[in-house]
Amino acid sequence: MSSIVLGMGNGKAMFGDEKVSDADLITLVDPNGLNINAFDLSVLRGDGIFEATTVWKGYPVSLENHLRRLAQSAAMVDLPKPNFDAITRGVEQVIDAYDDPEPGPLLRIIVSRGLDPDTGVGKASDRTPTVFIFLDAKGTLHETDPITMASMTRGYPSDITERAPWLLNGAKTLSYAFNCAVHRECARRGVGDAVLYTEDGYTLECPNSSIVARYGDTFVTPDPSIGILNGTSQRELFAWARQEGKSIEYRKLPIAELREADRLYMTHGGWVIPVNEIDGRTLDYSADEIAQANEAIHSGRTHDDALSIGPDYRY
Amino acid sequence: MSSIVLGMGNGKAMFGDEKVSDADLITLVDPNGLNINAFDLSVLRGDGIFEATTVWKGYPVSLENHLRRLAQSAAMVDLPKPNFDAITRGVEQVIDAYDDPEPGPLLRIIVSRGLDPDTGVGKASDRTPTVFIFLDAKGTLHETDPITMASMTRGYPSDITERAPWLLNGAKTLSYAFNCAVHRECARRGVGDAVLYTEDGYTLECPNSSIVARYGDTFVTPDPSIGILNGTSQRELFAWARQEGKSIEYRKLPIAELREADRLYMTHGGWVIPVNEIDGRTLDYSADEIAQANEAIHSGRTHDDALSIGPDYRY
Repeated sequence: MSSIVLGMGNGKAMFGDEKVSDADLITLVDPNGLNINAFDLSVLRGDGIFEATTVWKGYPVSLENHLRRLAQSAAMVDLPKPNFDAITRGVEQVIDAYDDPEPGPLLRIIVSRGLDPDTGVGKASDRTPTVFIFLDAKGTLHETDPITMASMTRGYPSDITERAPWLLNGAKTLSYAFNCAVHRECARRGVGDAVLYTEDGYTLECPNSSIVARYGDTFVTPDPSIGILNGTSQRELFAWARQEGKSIEYRKLPIAELREADRLYMTHGGWVIPVNEIDGRTLDYSADEIAQANEAIHSGRTHDDALSIGPDYRY
Repeated sequence: MSSIVLGMGNGKAMFGDEKVSDADLITLVDPNGLNINAFDLSVLRGDGIFEATTVWKGYPVSLENHLRRLAQSAAMVDLPKPNFDAITRGVEQVIDAYDDPEPGPLLRIIVSRGLDPDTGVGKASDRTPTVFIFLDAKGTLHETDPITMASMTRGYPSDITERAPWLLNGAKTLSYAFNCAVHRECARRGVGDAVLYTEDGYTLECPNSSIVARYGDTFVTPDPSIGILNGTSQRELFAWARQEGKSIEYRKLPIAELREADRLYMTHGGWVIPVNEIDGRTLDYSADEIAQANEAIHSGRTHDDALSIGPDYRY
């Protein structure tokens, strides 16, 4: 049974114009084997980008928005443009090879800059990006139990992204050592996750999630132009909220105001997860509401609307 | 001929107390082959640490200071303590397998947190760090031609490291996407390298180097407690300067003052490289002085003194 499917992608087709047949697009390999060269820039430098979502009963949640964000990350780190058609076909091949009863395995698309041209092994390479796609039913899967949260500084002022694009704020890179460190800090503090804020007190995002606050009938999330990811699951939640007759809003959101929200939602990987405590303050949540939002997202009901939601449609 | 040597290390011996024979310490593998699993945390998260130096005619420059810094990085990212003896023996085995005429190949020691326990492949693993060591004569090697430099903001205030240890400032992690982005920004601006500074105007370091300024007979470098790496080659240069009767100084160094230095030195990987321009201002340098410093460092003359040099011997 294939509970974990790992496909090595054709970098020239997925990040270039090379047309290849399905047979040459993805090579399925043993997930437990050795499949990456030690001089790959993913290994040596975390120099690459990725996207992650859930495949629910064969349907890759928000795939198009994930590919658009992958394209944005690629532009920010000077990688070639992703070929949406080739990557989508690759994702389909990986999904086709999956046959575990688990309905919601995790999908990840990983792209590195290829072999490091500053090493002897990479020097002669043609700088083709390394691409691989996996589907995994056996790792940690999402749960919708409410989680506790602490706020922590990200260390940057809110205007830094415009002034210093080399910080790559807003690109989803493979350099996640900081994000991992925040989660270890959460474990030390005995909380489930963290929400980051700027030195001047504005809400950013969680280490691998977006944050949405609810005030009455209005759902609010930080404007991504502050230097955070443009949330894919967050846009699905916004689409659901709008379908339910609520208002949605992108803006600069003071962390002090976030702490006073009526409800808080953490969104990532195709899921909405309720937050029941922030910085020690208890928050109300509705398991029914969460179940309805996730059901709408996983069934594809919110997909089309989510494609046109954004702060000012720049994303 | 072995111009590139890649050895996969025994993680239980190198990051634990397991005693193993030399035969079980390092496994030499084909550098051009597949040698890493795709679910390794180096690949997926840049979640690991490393050190890099030059092996000059068989002598690994500053190895003990590199291992001390590796231990400091390990502590900062909650990895087990490195076993200096096992890693040193592993480095020796890799050096023994090298037989290219190039006298100064690059050595790198790479450590990741192992397979990702949040994936199906990593879930059952025992969280042994992945370790590999390579020696490479065929990649980009150091040169001592003078380079031009531009200063850029790091986005952080100078007091952030103490307040937010989860930023991992001062740890040498595998998450180098930012460092790579700074180098691409340098290429766009037509300069050789960058020196970073804090939002309140204090000098930090270069993306993969330390910076040393000379004012008369005093060599000055930023105090690492500001949240930068404790430079290994920088300490070798300080040891040389002191042997030559000069003064050395660690302190908070305003970027404005750096720009007014008599001379500037970039140090990394066992080398001192002169800077001949910063932010458009031309700087004097002496090729003789640079050659003498590098000769002293590569011959091991500065090694012992460099071990006891530091801002206040905390490092």
